[in-house]
Amino acid sequence: MSAAIDPNAALDLLKFDSDGLVAAIAQQHDSGEVLMMAWMNRDAVIETLATGQVCYWSRSRSRLWRKGESSGQRQRLVDFRIDCDGDTILLCVDQEGVACHTGRRHCFYTAVRPEGLVEIAPVLVSPDQLYGA
Amino acid sequence: MSAAIDPNAALDLLKFDSDGLVAAIAQQHDSGEVLMMAWMNRDAVIETLATGQVCYWSRSRSRLWRKGESSGQRQRLVDFRIDCDGDTILLCVDQEGVACHTGRRHCFYTAVRPEGLVEIAPVLVSPDQLYGA
Repeated sequence: MSAAIDPNAALDLLKFDSDGLVAAIAQQHDSGEVLMMAWMNRDAVIETLATGQVCYWSRSRSRLWRKGESSGQRQRLVDFRIDCDGDTILLCVDQEGVACHTGRRHCFYTAVRPEGLVEIAPVLVSPDQLYGA
Repeated sequence: MSAAIDPNAALDLLKFDSDGLVAAIAQQHDSGEVLMMAWMNRDAVIETLATGQVCYWSRSRSRLWRKGESSGQRQRLVDFRIDCDGDTILLCVDQEGVACHTGRRHCFYTAVRPEGLVEIAPVLVSPDQLYGA
């Protein structure tokens, strides 16, 4: 995606919760890997569609979170999809490097299996390298 | 997945919100298609791991929602994964039929594109057929 997209049709369809948020799932567009889940408010939706770079709302920091602003691990928007209820977004993205703050490609690295918890994704970059020691 | 899984390690890792819920994303295990997003409480996690059939918590009906209980479109659990924050689950599933109550394979059928909203997934089964007229 290169051109800015008018956000009005999306904003009309989205049903923001009482905190003004909708859930947003990021999926690597070609491999289908689910990378992470985060939140967007109205401004994050507008900025993401305008710039083609994914911007979330950080609930812990109460501010816009331009994914990769500290780590450089940005997400380029490839497609922006809304679910039947209008309360969840599926972002098809091209993830630069790793999506997880732990240095793993994705956040869903703990599998619950008969033998117990199993780590299924390796650390590819140390968090120190991502964020400074 | 066939054997029941002890839920305790998962329950220790999960951070339920103030409503006692965590987000749960369902992904078709082989195609990688993201099917839907819903919610689980503690009992839904326990039942899903015990039976190998996905059970959510319905926020609108305030009760356990055994996916497919009305429509027959069940989700067999293939893998159960937890994210780095412990507040989102990724369910790798084998979806019988369609995941969406509109009769589409998945819920994310509206794409927001430069030309406007585009419907990207067809209705495969009529809702009347799924739920009775």
